[in-house]
Amino acid sequence: MTSQENRDIISTANALADAARAVILPHFRAFGGLIADNKETESFDPVTVADRESERKMREILAECRPDDAILGEEFGSKPGTSGLTWVLDPIDGTRGFLSGTPTWGVLIAVGGANGPDFGIIDQPYTGERFWGGYGQSGMTGPLGERALGTRSTRALEDAILFSTFPEIGSCREQAAFRAVADRVKLTRYGMDCYAYALLAAGQIDLVIEAGLYPYDVQAPIAVIQAAGGIVTDWAGGPAHMGGRILAAGNADIHRAALDQLRPIIAAP
Amino acid sequence: MTSQENRDIISTANALADAARAVILPHFRAFGGLIADNKETESFDPVTVADRESERKMREILAECRPDDAILGEEFGSKPGTSGLTWVLDPIDGTRGFLSGTPTWGVLIAVGGANGPDFGIIDQPYTGERFWGGYGQSGMTGPLGERALGTRSTRALEDAILFSTFPEIGSCREQAAFRAVADRVKLTRYGMDCYAYALLAAGQIDLVIEAGLYPYDVQAPIAVIQAAGGIVTDWAGGPAHMGGRILAAGNADIHRAALDQLRPIIAAP
Repeated sequence: MTSQENRDIISTANALADAARAVILPHFRAFGGLIADNKETESFDPVTVADRESERKMREILAECRPDDAILGEEFGSKPGTSGLTWVLDPIDGTRGFLSGTPTWGVLIAVGGANGPDFGIIDQPYTGERFWGGYGQSGMTGPLGERALGTRSTRALEDAILFSTFPEIGSCREQAAFRAVADRVKLTRYGMDCYAYALLAAGQIDLVIEAGLYPYDVQAPIAVIQAAGGIVTDWAGGPAHMGGRILAAGNADIHRAALDQLRPIIAAP
Repeated sequence: MTSQENRDIISTANALADAARAVILPHFRAFGGLIADNKETESFDPVTVADRESERKMREILAECRPDDAILGEEFGSKPGTSGLTWVLDPIDGTRGFLSGTPTWGVLIAVGGANGPDFGIIDQPYTGERFWGGYGQSGMTGPLGERALGTRSTRALEDAILFSTFPEIGSCREQAAFRAVADRVKLTRYGMDCYAYALLAAGQIDLVIEAGLYPYDVQAPIAVIQAAGGIVTDWAGGPAHMGGRILAAGNADIHRAALDQLRPIIAAP
């Protein structure tokens, strides 16, 4: 793949994120404040509308700019392609956060082959933040301008900050495995959806552990985190790009420390 | 108190929030990214520095603009006054969120008398959001411009969105009381610190329940939420401005529904 081809893909990915922002933002917090009363009389869910309009718009752009690539999207499923590349789209990751008005949901855009994503974007339209990584580069833009991304060097669980979206994570056994890590870290926080992966790539936190994810939940975070120096696997240390149980870590040492807690509990008979 | 006096107080409160933003923002995420390695070699905590510098700056402004008012601040304690008004300051509410890079900590500024706050501001410097309320008015500014505030009309717990900062809330009995509400609502989310109170005032969520708060954690949220149409009490329905166990609700119906769950468990012998 030529460098010009990579630049074209990066440019298309940013165009998708720009389009998603424009479609979604008018729906965010639209039913709050003094017009909250109207909500019950509406027959649609504002998240669903924003989700679908946004993915439809992104698919239109791909049909024009990248007609030979395949698409896997949360809302409209799979479209086959001939190039060997697949765009993996989650127009709103964190719909419950979106519905609650928090600024920590995101638009997830990834592109890659069968072995996982080559490039990804985590975009937060309300804060104006965009985290991206792939092809050996990573970075972010936001309220404070452009910044480099780079994961932390924390080595021990006792010094680590861990994030997960819900304290009620998956099955009883999955919960026990998560608690084995959570009980050892310095700080555990909840409720950030995909924003937690962005914070990990930006060197603000050390670990994200989640279960029950889909490919479109995790492929953009994988691309951004790997490009920023981190590691993303499942809870057995295997590939994570198909979703499931996710362990994202800032470096190999802290990844191994978390894996040593998770793996025996999940692997036990 | 004249209207000119109120305008002067509102103007001073905004000047404090502006000053806090300028002091704190350079410290936010300052140790992330590629310079994360430096963190261990520093002898100070960036949150502590930002906290103290910010409160010191706010006290300087008050000494000049409102010399007769008292001050209660998280970092530097009490300064007596002669006017009957006290400024209640929390330069960074949600230090753990700040340390993790999340955009949901805030600067809390309240002013009022012995019976509670008359006016308050919840400011989020990174997103550029400012939520304010008091003297019969409320509003917010942020990435989408100016907006009115106004709480929701949700009446039943089954339809409500509940926020709390930690799933591990206070004592065992406090946790049982919290769970009695959490088990009945449509959605419970964690991890937003003072931002949850702002979302309640903005009509995005219905309930915030927390325990172990200080006066400076809660006085600004009380002023903003009350001005937006909501109710803030302790878990027995009494005054909340001295802190402790906090129940913030969008309206009288949902407040009573939550109180009916909390009160019997807390009051039991």
